[in-house]
Amino acid sequence: MDDRECFDRLDSTASDTEDLFEHFERRTAADRTYHALPNARHGIERGTVVVEDTVVRGYPKIPRILVLDTGIPTFFENKLAVEEKLDGVNVRIANVNEPLAFTRSGYICPYTTARAKELLAPNEFFCDHPEQMLCAELVGPETPYTTHDYEEIDSHTFCVFDIRDCESGKPLSVSDRRRLCVEYGFPQPRLFGRYRPPQAVDGVRDAIETLDAAAREGVVMKTLHGEKMAKYTTESQHHEELAYAFSLPFDRGREFVFSRLVREAFQAAEFEADDDQLRERAHRLGEAILLPMVETIRDAANDKSIGERFTVRGSPQQIDALLEHLYDQSLTLEIDEITRENDEQTVEFVKVAEATRDQIHYYLEHGIHRD
Amino acid sequence: MDDRECFDRLDSTASDTEDLFEHFERRTAADRTYHALPNARHGIERGTVVVEDTVVRGYPKIPRILVLDTGIPTFFENKLAVEEKLDGVNVRIANVNEPLAFTRSGYICPYTTARAKELLAPNEFFCDHPEQMLCAELVGPETPYTTHDYEEIDSHTFCVFDIRDCESGKPLSVSDRRRLCVEYGFPQPRLFGRYRPPQAVDGVRDAIETLDAAAREGVVMKTLHGEKMAKYTTESQHHEELAYAFSLPFDRGREFVFSRLVREAFQAAEFEADDDQLRERAHRLGEAILLPMVETIRDAANDKSIGERFTVRGSPQQIDALLEHLYDQSLTLEIDEITRENDEQTVEFVKVAEATRDQIHYYLEHGIHRD
Repeated sequence: MDDRECFDRLDSTASDTEDLFEHFERRTAADRTYHALPNARHGIERGTVVVEDTVVRGYPKIPRILVLDTGIPTFFENKLAVEEKLDGVNVRIANVNEPLAFTRSGYICPYTTARAKELLAPNEFFCDHPEQMLCAELVGPETPYTTHDYEEIDSHTFCVFDIRDCESGKPLSVSDRRRLCVEYGFPQPRLFGRYRPPQAVDGVRDAIETLDAAAREGVVMKTLHGEKMAKYTTESQHHEELAYAFSLPFDRGREFVFSRLVREAFQAAEFEADDDQLRERAHRLGEAILLPMVETIRDAANDKSIGERFTVRGSPQQIDALLEHLYDQSLTLEIDEITRENDEQTVEFVKVAEATRDQIHYYLEHGIHRD
Repeated sequence: MDDRECFDRLDSTASDTEDLFEHFERRTAADRTYHALPNARHGIERGTVVVEDTVVRGYPKIPRILVLDTGIPTFFENKLAVEEKLDGVNVRIANVNEPLAFTRSGYICPYTTARAKELLAPNEFFCDHPEQMLCAELVGPETPYTTHDYEEIDSHTFCVFDIRDCESGKPLSVSDRRRLCVEYGFPQPRLFGRYRPPQAVDGVRDAIETLDAAAREGVVMKTLHGEKMAKYTTESQHHEELAYAFSLPFDRGREFVFSRLVREAFQAAEFEADDDQLRERAHRLGEAILLPMVETIRDAANDKSIGERFTVRGSPQQIDALLEHLYDQSLTLEIDEITRENDEQTVEFVKVAEATRDQIHYYLEHGIHRD
């Protein structure tokens, strides 16, 4: 496709081709060259990709409700569906002659592609619906990007939460999408219910309490046509993310931490009417902050690895392709353990958090900083 | 004094007068015009002031020890004195025909000047030592800048922790300074002891435990000549500052919060060998973060004032001059209560935290943000 056609099909707010395409990055993967938009620009979502004759639209950013009581009725005018939001990696699986899996920021991930082919077997779906893409969360303890544990998942799985027109990004309605997932056997997130906005406040609150008790992430609310979305998360999710951030304090941005503390405080102000409950919650929050940070400092003092530990599973070719893909992104990896059973390899590795490792070692040795 | 003379006397690393003086701000107070350096530049400390024929050197930034065990022996080669660091406002009182009090960032504060004249009566000292300045902490519940409570202070007092050459900033030795404070009746900070570096680790730790139990700030360590300094603070101080920051979450920078969490974690890693103690500490930390933030959200929901509350005491003229000085700095004040007894006024006011107030009101009304 030539530049002009591509520009027209992307339907951006940019004034001309150059104005738009200067923001795209040229990348290669598995003998394919593609162009990806690393950040949202000119009305085009982050992670939008042009590969050969196909446009794969990025997944839109979902606004976050901070206060259920005012947020839901202010944001939603019409009936909404409340579905579980899973803690994993958002990937789009699109049909580019073959199924390819794209990460949120528009990388073709060879490992995720291979797993998607195996676990979702999407060929029949793409045969019937070549213009659609599957938007799915890759979840489970064995993925190369996230490690949230779900009781029901031993290794990893995909959960299809959206089906969208690949080029325009227009979603199917909630009911059409859920029907198709059943038809093609795709796992999909739990549906808590459909509510008018005033009733949704209690509906979401009940769902959140159920999910929080099981240490799960939260919900996404969507109008029934699927166009308008908002998310809301549990206390346990906020604490899990803070624990993660404070286990690598010099690698995660100050903004990351601050935004999670803000959502935690607004939820506490809305949910915890009882002072003792609020105090208990504050104790859990304090543990989420201090214990991981102290553990990391002690690990550094004992010369242990500082970073995130992942386990992945696949054929030797798939594992090699994944590691190459990660090295391409300039990550420093420590490969710890490789086991092989029949054709399947299991690899444990650490993505080294260099800033945290180096900063803590510096402070431990010199004991001082000028602030 | 002309520019060239001033440049020479400042003894900076700047290449010429313009290079240095472009960083100075012109200010006026009580019919005086003066020039102040709002940020450290060219080897000149922040808050350095040129007023008429006098150079008033800024107070140097004190490096912070993060890990006592390595920090003290790395930083100090020679014997050091360990003195209490008080939580108040760092002011310099210099003799410019009359005693004037300068804030850390180089403002002449009329209120602090008046209080210093009254409480320290420094005229005799300046008569004997015209070239020196008193570096003092203004502390107590009744000051316009800080509100840390000390059991022994009802209103406010000055504590002289340094005496320095006004122009060069060169300090007196610890023993000369302490002797002069006794001679002229200036209150001064507690001296915990003089130690060689290896012994200072335990000395500081004992002092910190004593101070922490009384919810006091921490210590400053100084070589006996007074030239080299480092500070170290208590858990209760970290928590107090975090509670303050999270009571005004959108006014205090992310950096403020983060740096205090880092010092807290390094101290916890060094001090809390016992897991249960570490967990208890985490609970206190969580309370310091969540409870003030939730309280501020609820205050905003109930349309209460959002900001810091201060009480000051003085003659009507002193109070007027202070309020004018604060308005000059573009602060929004809510004056709540004025009482008068004989010649003395007591005024309560709130420095309004506009960013926090507006941001929280926005979230409470709209319930959503896009992050």
